Amino acid sequence: MTYCVAMCLDRGLVFASDTRTNAGVDNISQFRKLHYWCKQDDRVIVMLTAGNLSITQSVISLLNEQISSGDGNPDHQSLYTVPSMYRAARLVGDAVRSVRTIDGPSLEATRAGFSASIILGGQIGTEKPRLFQIYSEGNFIEASEETPYLQIGEHKYGKPILDRVAQPGMRLGQAAKLMLLSFDSTLRSNLSVGMPIDILLYERDSLEIRREKRIHQDDEYFRNLSASWSEALRMAFTTIDEFNV
Amino acid sequence: MTYCVAMCLDRGLVFASDTRTNAGVDNISQFRKLHYWCKQDDRVIVMLTAGNLSITQSVISLLNEQISSGDGNPDHQSLYTVPSMYRAARLVGDAVRSVRTIDGPSLEATRAGFSASIILGGQIGTEKPRLFQIYSEGNFIEASEETPYLQIGEHKYGKPILDRVAQPGMRLGQAAKLMLLSFDSTLRSNLSVGMPIDILLYERDSLEIRREKRIHQDDEYFRNLSASWSEALRMAFTTIDEFNV
Repeated sequence: MTYCVAMCLDRGLVFASDTRTNAGVDNISQFRKLHYWCKQDDRVIVMLTAGNLSITQSVISLLNEQISSGDGNPDHQSLYTVPSMYRAARLVGDAVRSVRTIDGPSLEATRAGFSASIILGGQIGTEKPRLFQIYSEGNFIEASEETPYLQIGEHKYGKPILDRVAQPGMRLGQAAKLMLLSFDSTLRSNLSVGMPIDILLYERDSLEIRREKRIHQDDEYFRNLSASWSEALRMAFTTIDEFNV
Repeated sequence: MTYCVAMCLDRGLVFASDTRTNAGVDNISQFRKLHYWCKQDDRVIVMLTAGNLSITQSVISLLNEQISSGDGNPDHQSLYTVPSMYRAARLVGDAVRSVRTIDGPSLEATRAGFSASIILGGQIGTEKPRLFQIYSEGNFIEASEETPYLQIGEHKYGKPILDRVAQPGMRLGQAAKLMLLSFDSTLRSNLSVGMPIDILLYERDSLEIRREKRIHQDDEYFRNLSASWSEALRMAFTTIDEFNV
C-alpha cells in the first residue's frame, strides 16, 4: 500500500508521499513515489504514484521516453511541450492506457489486477497551478475550491483531519503541517505505509522547485509534530463532557 | 456499510453501532445492529453486527430459536445456558457456520460473497466481562489489555482517535465519549454509515442493562461533542509550528 496526498492552494501546491512498497507484509522495500519534471521559468509538473509499482514505473518511463524522443521536433507531445496541465493529465492518462494494453491482460488474469492511481499537479506558464487525480482507466478529475486536496492509496485514516482543516487559503507551510498530521494518523494505523516521507512545496508562479525535503524517521520536526498532536488530542478529549445516560 | 465499535474496560463494556444499511447508495434503510440478551443477576450478552444483513439476521434468529426450543432442558445449549462468554462466542460462531451451509454457496457465486462480522461481549455469572470479534468463518479473537477495543465495518476513519486515547482504565462515560468521537469522524467521511447511533454501557458485575440510548441526528450531547471536537482540533492545529524547509 501507499499513502499520497496533495493540496491545491491559492498560494501554490503541496505534495507528500510515503516511500514504502510491499508485496505481502513479509516483503517491503523503499521506492520513491514523488517525481517531478521542471523547466525553469516555463513549467513544474509533479507526480505522486500509488498502486502496482511495475505499472507506475512504466508510466514514468514512457513519459520520459516521450521527452527524449521529441528533441528538436516542436510538434512532439511530451510533458515538456504540452500547453496546459489539462493536456499533461491527458498525456499521463494515455501512458496509463498504453501500459494497460501491454500488462493489463496478464495482471487482470490474477488476483493482483491492474491497479494504479496517480496525482498530477503543477503549473505551466501563466496558467494557474492545477491538481488532478488520474485513475487506472486513464480518466481523471481535478481538485476544486470545495475539495482542495486529493489522496491516493491508503486514504481513510488520514482523511478526517483533512476534512476538518483543509482550506485553499492556507499558507504552504500550514498545508504541509496538515498533510504531515494526516500522514502521522496513517503511519500509526497501517504498517504498509512507511517513512521516510517525501514532501514538496511549490510556490505559485515561481516556475521552479525551491522547497523539497525527505523526512526520515528521526526528523526532529516530524517527531515534535507527532508528539504535540497526540498530546493536543488527549487534552482536547478531556475538555469535552463525558457521555451520560 | 456499517460501523460498530466496542471497548472492554476494567469497569465494564461499552458498545456502539450505527443503524444504516444499504444495497447501493440509492437504497438505504435503517436497521438495528445492536442486540442483547439479558437474564437478570445471571448474564448480559450484547451483539453488534456488520456485513450482509440477511446473514446477521439469520444468525440472530438461530440463536433465538435455540433459546426458545431449549425450554425446560438443562443440557440444551443456548445463549441463556452457556457457562462462559467463550462458549457464547463458540455458539455464535457455530450459528454463522450454519447460515453459511444454507446461504454460502449462492452468495459466493455472486460478487456479494458471504460477509458477516460480529462483536460479542458481556458477562456471565462471576466471570469477568469479555469481548470477542467473530469472523464470517465462525472463528474469533478476544480483546486484550493492549487493544481494549474492537471495530467492525468501516473502521478506518475512526481508528486514529481510538489508537491515541483508548485505555482499559477509562470510565464508561469517557469510553462512550471516545467512541462517539470515533463515530463522528466516520460519519463525516462515509455516507454509508448513518445516524441514529445505538449505544449501550454495561457496568461490571451489574448483570443487568441500565444505560442504553439511541442517539438521533438532533441529539444535543452529540451535536455539542461534534462541534467542540472540530473546534478543539482546529485550535490544536494552530498550536503546532508550521512546516518550514
